[in-house]
Amino acid sequence: MATEKNSWNPKSKLELIVLSKLTAVKSDNKSKMSILDKYNKRAKEINSLLCVGLDSDYKKIPDRFLTNEMPQFAFNKWLIEETQEYAAAFKINIAFYEARGDQGLKELKETMEYLRVYYPDIFLICDSKRADIGNTNQGYVNELFDWFGFDAITLHPYLGGEALQPFLDRKDKGCIILCRTSNPGAGELQDLELRKPFNSAQSKQLWQIVAEKVYYDWNKNNNCMLVVGATYPEEMKKIRNIAGDMTFLVPGIGAQGGSVAEVMKAGLNSQNLGLIINSSRGIIFSENPKKEAQRLCEEIRRFM
Amino acid sequence: MATEKNSWNPKSKLELIVLSKLTAVKSDNKSKMSILDKYNKRAKEINSLLCVGLDSDYKKIPDRFLTNEMPQFAFNKWLIEETQEYAAAFKINIAFYEARGDQGLKELKETMEYLRVYYPDIFLICDSKRADIGNTNQGYVNELFDWFGFDAITLHPYLGGEALQPFLDRKDKGCIILCRTSNPGAGELQDLELRKPFNSAQSKQLWQIVAEKVYYDWNKNNNCMLVVGATYPEEMKKIRNIAGDMTFLVPGIGAQGGSVAEVMKAGLNSQNLGLIINSSRGIIFSENPKKEAQRLCEEIRRFM
Repeated sequence: MATEKNSWNPKSKLELIVLSKLTAVKSDNKSKMSILDKYNKRAKEINSLLCVGLDSDYKKIPDRFLTNEMPQFAFNKWLIEETQEYAAAFKINIAFYEARGDQGLKELKETMEYLRVYYPDIFLICDSKRADIGNTNQGYVNELFDWFGFDAITLHPYLGGEALQPFLDRKDKGCIILCRTSNPGAGELQDLELRKPFNSAQSKQLWQIVAEKVYYDWNKNNNCMLVVGATYPEEMKKIRNIAGDMTFLVPGIGAQGGSVAEVMKAGLNSQNLGLIINSSRGIIFSENPKKEAQRLCEEIRRFM
Repeated sequence: MATEKNSWNPKSKLELIVLSKLTAVKSDNKSKMSILDKYNKRAKEINSLLCVGLDSDYKKIPDRFLTNEMPQFAFNKWLIEETQEYAAAFKINIAFYEARGDQGLKELKETMEYLRVYYPDIFLICDSKRADIGNTNQGYVNELFDWFGFDAITLHPYLGGEALQPFLDRKDKGCIILCRTSNPGAGELQDLELRKPFNSAQSKQLWQIVAEKVYYDWNKNNNCMLVVGATYPEEMKKIRNIAGDMTFLVPGIGAQGGSVAEVMKAGLNSQNLGLIINSSRGIIFSENPKKEAQRLCEEIRRFM
């Protein structure tokens, strides 16, 4: 296995064809499994809720990878090997690859082929924050679910569930809807007070309505999740009360200042699962990504 | 000029370098002009508010282009030549290119090089519907504004103005914020009634709040626009009342059922401008794109 990985040659077309066929067979065998079962199985197997964010910003990649023909892929391959034993999921923010145009997409595709062949049990998330009108979304479905082969992607709620249908219809894939984001200005729209039902005295914040809509209306195929930032544990507690055992993708640990302890207290579901806790910059640009992933994983384990 | 265009060879690296330098010089000469002046100048010059949507869905491209090494680019090149005399703007929904992975992005890049060299006065919009947290958005800025060279892009408002800052900071580029989208289910979130100010009896709908925020808070660099669907002329009238002379990108004409007459009555600003009226499928997959663009352009002219 080690030799195979070391001899991985992204330029061999034949190899890629063989590998993608292998992957197809593997995913076919799993067709009866829900996409959330994939995450939960991996999380339980390695006793971790850690998601490692492969946000391999080209400008920050260590010099030793820059001589490689595919520097982002080479860096990712190294990061994957360093951190995989602690990773229940990998999350890739596609912005860092699109920043390099078609070359970036090529290196992301290579990263995905590598992950799907060598680590088919690890949950693969594309942080793409997409959402267009219905027929156009099919383009993103083709790209992110089928061409790259992600298990789940992140989506904006603003156009409503009708527009998101091409994503929601994919029973074999996960739809992670932005609910309460981790950025400092998240509240500008998300905290707006809404009347519901209209003209009643009762009011709710926009993020609460989004959580309710996803939980009650959009999740017909049991493939929805929510983005809930680690930087807002109070809101996370309330969203857990709304959304039953639904899984949350939790950005904002590490560089953005969120705390593992607070997230675990606020967000675990009744199965002691329901969280995908992501750290990107905090792990991959640290002095020792392996140690940093291990440290975070062990911190998570203390509360599992 | 005609010969040059016919001999356009996307594979010649040298040619691409020369062309991109030409483009750089051209855009440098224009650095003192606001990006909205570019659109308005073109609209006035050709007396048109028509935007042609190059949403070149690979599955629908006519057979005769499929033998080309770059079918999406070849189709676009033909569409550009057929419709450019009526086009104040071209809008490209990037989903239809991303659907084909790195190859799609390569053909989109080729399309952009061609447009920027031969039609530098036509306003170029990327319908990308992006929005991530601040530092990540820089990746999309690099890709869409700088690598592809779009004049303006569409953005989701859900993360707030703080997150969008890397886009808003670009005085030389346009930020088109989704306000009232054209899809049938747009109202699910956008029509929610909000209390503003909190706890007052007064209420507004979410799309009204977004329009106000963009107009009063996010538009410090005078580079913001709004997406307002042609399928909701009543809302468009109200948004015109909120947003002064701000320019609206108007999808939903043609295939989606919006009417040019209603849009022109509801949306023109005090300068008899302020609208970018888009048709994509309705033009490019019609039997005669040139005639269809001309027909729409003349319909618009009747109300200008």
